[in-house]
Amino acid sequence: MPGSEIYGGISGIYDFGPYGVALKNNLKKLWWRTFVESRDDIVGIESAILMNRQVWQASGHEKDFIDELVECKKCHIRYRVDDLGKSEVRSPKSETNSNDQISKCPSGGEHEFTEPKQFNPMFKTHVGVVEDEKSLTYLRPETAQGMFTDFKQVLEVSRQKVPFGIAQIGKNFRNEINTKDFLYRIREFEIAEIEYFVPSPSARAKFSAGSLGQAKSDEEWFDYWLNEWQEFILSLGINKENLSHHDHPKKDLAHYSKRTVDILYNFPFGKKELAGVANRTDFDLRSHEKASGKDLKYFDELSKEKYWPYVIEPTLGIERLMLAIICDAFEETKPRTQTTEAATEKEIILHLNPKLAPVKVAVLPLVKKLSAKAREIYQDLKTCWGEIEYDESGSIGRRYRRQDEIGTPYCITIDFDTLDDNKVTVRDRDTMKQERVEIKELKNYLFGKLS
Amino acid sequence: MPGSEIYGGISGIYDFGPYGVALKNNLKKLWWRTFVESRDDIVGIESAILMNRQVWQASGHEKDFIDELVECKKCHIRYRVDDLGKSEVRSPKSETNSNDQISKCPSGGEHEFTEPKQFNPMFKTHVGVVEDEKSLTYLRPETAQGMFTDFKQVLEVSRQKVPFGIAQIGKNFRNEINTKDFLYRIREFEIAEIEYFVPSPSARAKFSAGSLGQAKSDEEWFDYWLNEWQEFILSLGINKENLSHHDHPKKDLAHYSKRTVDILYNFPFGKKELAGVANRTDFDLRSHEKASGKDLKYFDELSKEKYWPYVIEPTLGIERLMLAIICDAFEETKPRTQTTEAATEKEIILHLNPKLAPVKVAVLPLVKKLSAKAREIYQDLKTCWGEIEYDESGSIGRRYRRQDEIGTPYCITIDFDTLDDNKVTVRDRDTMKQERVEIKELKNYLFGKLS
Repeated sequence: MPGSEIYGGISGIYDFGPYGVALKNNLKKLWWRTFVESRDDIVGIESAILMNRQVWQASGHEKDFIDELVECKKCHIRYRVDDLGKSEVRSPKSETNSNDQISKCPSGGEHEFTEPKQFNPMFKTHVGVVEDEKSLTYLRPETAQGMFTDFKQVLEVSRQKVPFGIAQIGKNFRNEINTKDFLYRIREFEIAEIEYFVPSPSARAKFSAGSLGQAKSDEEWFDYWLNEWQEFILSLGINKENLSHHDHPKKDLAHYSKRTVDILYNFPFGKKELAGVANRTDFDLRSHEKASGKDLKYFDELSKEKYWPYVIEPTLGIERLMLAIICDAFEETKPRTQTTEAATEKEIILHLNPKLAPVKVAVLPLVKKLSAKAREIYQDLKTCWGEIEYDESGSIGRRYRRQDEIGTPYCITIDFDTLDDNKVTVRDRDTMKQERVEIKELKNYLFGKLS
Repeated sequence: MPGSEIYGGISGIYDFGPYGVALKNNLKKLWWRTFVESRDDIVGIESAILMNRQVWQASGHEKDFIDELVECKKCHIRYRVDDLGKSEVRSPKSETNSNDQISKCPSGGEHEFTEPKQFNPMFKTHVGVVEDEKSLTYLRPETAQGMFTDFKQVLEVSRQKVPFGIAQIGKNFRNEINTKDFLYRIREFEIAEIEYFVPSPSARAKFSAGSLGQAKSDEEWFDYWLNEWQEFILSLGINKENLSHHDHPKKDLAHYSKRTVDILYNFPFGKKELAGVANRTDFDLRSHEKASGKDLKYFDELSKEKYWPYVIEPTLGIERLMLAIICDAFEETKPRTQTTEAATEKEIILHLNPKLAPVKVAVLPLVKKLSAKAREIYQDLKTCWGEIEYDESGSIGRRYRRQDEIGTPYCITIDFDTLDDNKVTVRDRDTMKQERVEIKELKNYLFGKLS
């Protein structure tokens, strides 16, 4: 929902309600489990949103992270030049913007644009009591820099060896000129990304006689991560045919990048960047070593050589992925049963992956008279999963549809037979198949379905 | 570790390394599980860090969230007046500051302070292209306001009835004049809190004939939450004797508060606020209704009356709690075994609650020759828990001590007997008791210990 909505909102800023935050947390947990906890070669960190300004000077963001904007002289609406279909490249991180429609000028006719002006979309703030150049810094526009500035400390405590990765999920801020497309282009958003450190081409060539020579090249690691990234997105239940790739042409690459591939999702508003993989080379470690004077090289124990590793960066936007998940899971159908009481024209079903669903199971007594038994079952399940909902208000058909809309994979109905045979009906959201299951078998049954 | 450390850091800002972020995530997950997922009467949200400036005008923060600061004319160090032992109350959220020692002036003798100046510790920023009064807003200094501005939307989608709560964990920012005591007073920090809405005293009096009359009063809910909060902190393994309460005297209460109790922890640097409970009355909903013109009253279906609920707010600082957990779990002892190879003077043991420990189990082959078997066991456990570490470098004593220091509750040693009898040794961090366990029983054994 729009942030600060009672005050008319704040453009490009969203809050998440109970189901939204559950979906978001489930997605983040799954990502962390997949890429940090389940792997030996990746460790997690959490770096701060506020960083020393010198970070953004060394990374190139202060000077080169520029949007060009024009303003219509008649209506005073501002546009990003990128959005006008001209092929200005946004740097350092370019985004695939193609054929966005620019609305007509509200004051009639075509817009009359000013000359483009440069605008840095980093939010400024001052740390300390005095507001001056010395205290100026920015809200981070990407999480990546934390993995570079902390590279040596993390290496030391984690005792990792190249190839290895540092992962992070965290908030980022970009003062977008035009926010749009709901959660697609917003000003406060979370990124989940990995900086994966691999032997640089020169280190690999030098050590080719030894074990490092057997290691994958940076190009091979790039392909590996592009595949891992796509597989993760597919594992969430997203339809493969809605994904495509955009391999950035050499001339459009950011100054630090050797190769960048976007994974695009076929949103209702067009094929747009959902995630991406970049080969950042050794640009960041090299730049930070130069600017900070601190040694950021990796010491290879086999060859006793020091070098800056190359970095493969798979990255994805959490809110964009949530939006893709919802678009992909969304189905509008004619009523699926004859028994629905009201003259509903359509039903909505959200075919969410059970791992992501904000509610795993809804417990529904057929009538209120059965609520004692239903509550008992509900409490028992809730100690196991947490994400269980109890609902006794409205007709059973209406309650099913409510759960279908929020993507609950299983509904459990307690009816009068339950009191006799100790069985409940489990209804599958997608197939609407109903199965009678013994109460004492229910947890095992659901455990099998949900994991 | 200090944020942006390679650039000399940024005062009061910390990053978390692999073990730190694991501890933090475990703590947040446990809190969310306890207060959101396990309860019927509380729902979670995530509201944004950037909010419309009018939120901070209505809440009183823009005008009244003031620190007084003085500067020494000789050394130019700035101090918060609160820290000088004068009893200025910080408003709206006061903090228990008592007898902090003010250092001598580095230029010799006593400090010579200027007159106190007012300083608002909210970080400013501008949203949009033009930097002016109209685009000004702040990084939120507390999460609470999101629960008030979203009150009606959450009420609608969650179909909750008073009494109920809205919970959130999120980042907050305060531009502290003096940051200090490691993670204790920092500029970027997470808060976990609940706004728990209860019948107002007048609503309760009016409905006393009906069911609401049977309900707890706001004072009783206050006591309930103070107890729940303390129980949660104790459930983390914190020593009860290190906790105490500070009941704010009436004259020191923030303008919105009917009662505030801090839960203090006995830190190495003094007894300091760790968490707290406040009775915020109906101040916030009333203020936001007045400022926004939107109806923020609760409609009671039984009595058909509308009213502003009172709010009980239990709140805790995630980083402060992490610091308390670490202080509480920390033990420095003489070497616990005769067999340690080096002449170590002392050992460190972090007696972390297994639920919080960044590493649940470490798998250690006695010698490298046994690594194939050890790796197999490690991989099997890792699919179950994720937080499993494998270590084969250094003597077994040294590896035990490494795990003791990071608070790993169980170490599993694979020795030559393992190859014959299919048993491993499980060592308990705290008792150092060793038990032989069959490999096929290992998961069940650990599951019992860890949950």
